[in-house]
Amino acid sequence: MNYRIIVRTLGFILLFEAVFFLVPAITAVCYWEKEFFAFLFCMLFCGAVGGACFLVKNKGGTMYAKEGFVIVALSWIAMSLFGALPFWFSGAIPSFIDALFETVSGFTTTGATILPSGAAVEALPKSMLMWRSFTHWLGGMGVLVFVMVFLPLSGGRNISLLQAESTGAAVNKLVPKMRSTARILYLIYTALTVVQFILLVFDMPVFDAVNTAFATAGTGGFSVKGDSCASYSVYSQTVVTVFMILFSVNFTSFYLILCGKLKEAFNLEVKTFFVIVFAAILLITLNLQLTGYGYSLGEAILHSAFSVASVISTTGFVTANFDLWPAFSKTILVLLMFIGACAGSTGGGIKVSRVIVLCKGASHEMKRIVHPRQIKKITMDKRIVEHEVVRRINAYFVAYLLIFVASLLCISFDCADLTTNFTSVAATLNNIGPGLGLVGPDGNFAFFSDFSKLVLIFDMLAGRLEVFPMLVLFLPSTWRK
Amino acid sequence: MNYRIIVRTLGFILLFEAVFFLVPAITAVCYWEKEFFAFLFCMLFCGAVGGACFLVKNKGGTMYAKEGFVIVALSWIAMSLFGALPFWFSGAIPSFIDALFETVSGFTTTGATILPSGAAVEALPKSMLMWRSFTHWLGGMGVLVFVMVFLPLSGGRNISLLQAESTGAAVNKLVPKMRSTARILYLIYTALTVVQFILLVFDMPVFDAVNTAFATAGTGGFSVKGDSCASYSVYSQTVVTVFMILFSVNFTSFYLILCGKLKEAFNLEVKTFFVIVFAAILLITLNLQLTGYGYSLGEAILHSAFSVASVISTTGFVTANFDLWPAFSKTILVLLMFIGACAGSTGGGIKVSRVIVLCKGASHEMKRIVHPRQIKKITMDKRIVEHEVVRRINAYFVAYLLIFVASLLCISFDCADLTTNFTSVAATLNNIGPGLGLVGPDGNFAFFSDFSKLVLIFDMLAGRLEVFPMLVLFLPSTWRK
Repeated sequence: MNYRIIVRTLGFILLFEAVFFLVPAITAVCYWEKEFFAFLFCMLFCGAVGGACFLVKNKGGTMYAKEGFVIVALSWIAMSLFGALPFWFSGAIPSFIDALFETVSGFTTTGATILPSGAAVEALPKSMLMWRSFTHWLGGMGVLVFVMVFLPLSGGRNISLLQAESTGAAVNKLVPKMRSTARILYLIYTALTVVQFILLVFDMPVFDAVNTAFATAGTGGFSVKGDSCASYSVYSQTVVTVFMILFSVNFTSFYLILCGKLKEAFNLEVKTFFVIVFAAILLITLNLQLTGYGYSLGEAILHSAFSVASVISTTGFVTANFDLWPAFSKTILVLLMFIGACAGSTGGGIKVSRVIVLCKGASHEMKRIVHPRQIKKITMDKRIVEHEVVRRINAYFVAYLLIFVASLLCISFDCADLTTNFTSVAATLNNIGPGLGLVGPDGNFAFFSDFSKLVLIFDMLAGRLEVFPMLVLFLPSTWRK
Repeated sequence: MNYRIIVRTLGFILLFEAVFFLVPAITAVCYWEKEFFAFLFCMLFCGAVGGACFLVKNKGGTMYAKEGFVIVALSWIAMSLFGALPFWFSGAIPSFIDALFETVSGFTTTGATILPSGAAVEALPKSMLMWRSFTHWLGGMGVLVFVMVFLPLSGGRNISLLQAESTGAAVNKLVPKMRSTARILYLIYTALTVVQFILLVFDMPVFDAVNTAFATAGTGGFSVKGDSCASYSVYSQTVVTVFMILFSVNFTSFYLILCGKLKEAFNLEVKTFFVIVFAAILLITLNLQLTGYGYSLGEAILHSAFSVASVISTTGFVTANFDLWPAFSKTILVLLMFIGACAGSTGGGIKVSRVIVLCKGASHEMKRIVHPRQIKKITMDKRIVEHEVVRRINAYFVAYLLIFVASLLCISFDCADLTTNFTSVAATLNNIGPGLGLVGPDGNFAFFSDFSKLVLIFDMLAGRLEVFPMLVLFLPSTWRK
């Protein structure tokens, strides 16, 4: 284990975070808020610690996959710890664990909140709201990816960093140089965010539009309104719906569309994703209409499309309290929570491509039983999925479920309702935000004990970093020289 | 696909079932019940159909794995259809779907009931109660295994039948001849049942002792009492607890103990199983005591031991309404539902050995990330688990979850409570019996629609036959010549 390179990279990340504090600090100046000083202090503190760590010299030695995973996991933990300070120092969130929960929820683009009521959200200073939304935007594409755009890290092997931080089974190199790939991805990300902002700003205040665009882009879900998106116009809700779906699509597909490679852009994963989205909207709309829930057809379509997009993209914005919907609709939403978005998007969950590989694996095995002599390989978009990839996805899935089960047991001391417990873990591990029951669209995570909050913080990080980086931290052999 | 061998074997199985009807018929004579005629008629009808099918000549052709899976799946469906007739003809259960549900629940050793209240169980004629319990005993070890003891099937390849019907990852040949292995397994099974009967008969009527022994041996859970085992003495409850655990152990281990190979008998799976059982009892007892549930320490130990044994063995007997216990205890019980018993026992669930292989696979993959150059194979009891076995277990697990999810959606139209829906599928797919909520220890499955009941019937069969035989029926290529 190369400790020096880890400390140095962490320092570098913290220096960047110090710069990121400028965004809420400037907001505080604009709105003449005294929280400016909290951000100023955090900026200096974060910069000082980061600078000190960055001074550690790397005495040679390469960065292997192991170091990559550890750096990613520790960076996210460090960023969250420092990111929580403004909430705590300013007194906006008095408990540090709560502040940490809110920040991790921001960076991991979960959007689960401990703020006890809708009114408490609107009572937050504008600069704090901006910091909440901005963490979504930073966390969505990945902070280390961002860092790579600006400076190539010493010691090479940046691909292991990018792979450990990005979502989904594999990161494709779009262009030969890793740094250029990261730059292209961030350009697409920024462009889409700007387009959404422009579409929204016709219909809502600039502040709301910026924050909503940040939170949609990262598929986060923090809103500046107490009722999330419920009080926005149908136009704005539709824009948000469309962009939640767009940000769930593999960013590589956007690049391919720009290159004119339409057929490659709409690969199996993207097609499957859209089939799932439309099927879910159709089924929930039918269910709401046939059970006489009280929506007009238009309302049913609007609310079901918004909720499906919000849950499968793992954003977590809300226009209707789906906890009150019929069981069939709720069950569909819970399933979508687990499926999640496309790999290589900003969304969370297991990812559509992994679900496809898992299903294909099961189907292949069944055919092997019936026809033992036929040997077929699993393919996706006419390319063979290597045995190693299938094995890793299976391992990911098992590790994911083990974390799920362990978390469920840990938090079950606080709440008697199994649906609340189950969806609390589902909503944090898949980086969605709201669940059902006490953590439903009208609820929040404030009632959990500090211990449970720490468990859910771990789940949010494990979900965002796709399980293995967080687990590698607990492996004794990781820390041996 | 060799249709002739399938029809012939099905006929053979039905002939055996006709003989099995003798047990409840004799019971009806003993208690002078008019249901004797229902059983007599079913016996003749079943025998006639079976005999007609058996007359189909096998024009050569071997039985491959494919035929083995189809025969096993169709045998269980046919047995259940004919087994439901006495309930229906006698009017004991007026709806045929309900009668089928009860019979499938019996053969698959689930123990889930549609009888609307505890009193309805005790109101059933003794011969009907005997048939319910006897189906458990027959289904526990497997009907085709039983058939093999008496007659070697034409066409050889009996191992594929045995493997398709038996539980767990692999059936070991104890002795070179498959038929002798089946005989040894049935001898152990019968001997244990007799021992339990003798221990119970000191403390309860002969009829109760016979039925309880049958239902425990098959890890089924149908009781002749409306309150399951709650009204039996502490002595009887303890005997049932011990035997539920014994019947969850791989029967190969009993054979090895008889051969004096103690070390081999207590292999990794058996040891892990006992660790899980004791840890669960300890945690639930502590949880009940610390939350002040109102049990004395003795009661807490008794009820938690009974419930843990009942759930992990997938029996489903009840002494206390665990649906009222704290969430932590309920969550543990739900997890145990999924883990299930040891492979090669009469219990259901995913099986401890599969859980071990899945966890080892995930842990190996994680170590591979940290040390990419180390190549290690997964081992169990110092033997390498072949890559093919790991792959099949992963596929089994995914197929199992897909059935789970599809069933959950199908039954969600009937009931608004997600916990009830979730545990209904868990309790049937894992062949347990009671779940939580409306299907908890005080509830039953009567309120479900016929469609949902058919879905749950499929789940019980899929759970007992370990998913693949039932799924193979739906594969178009299975039916091609």
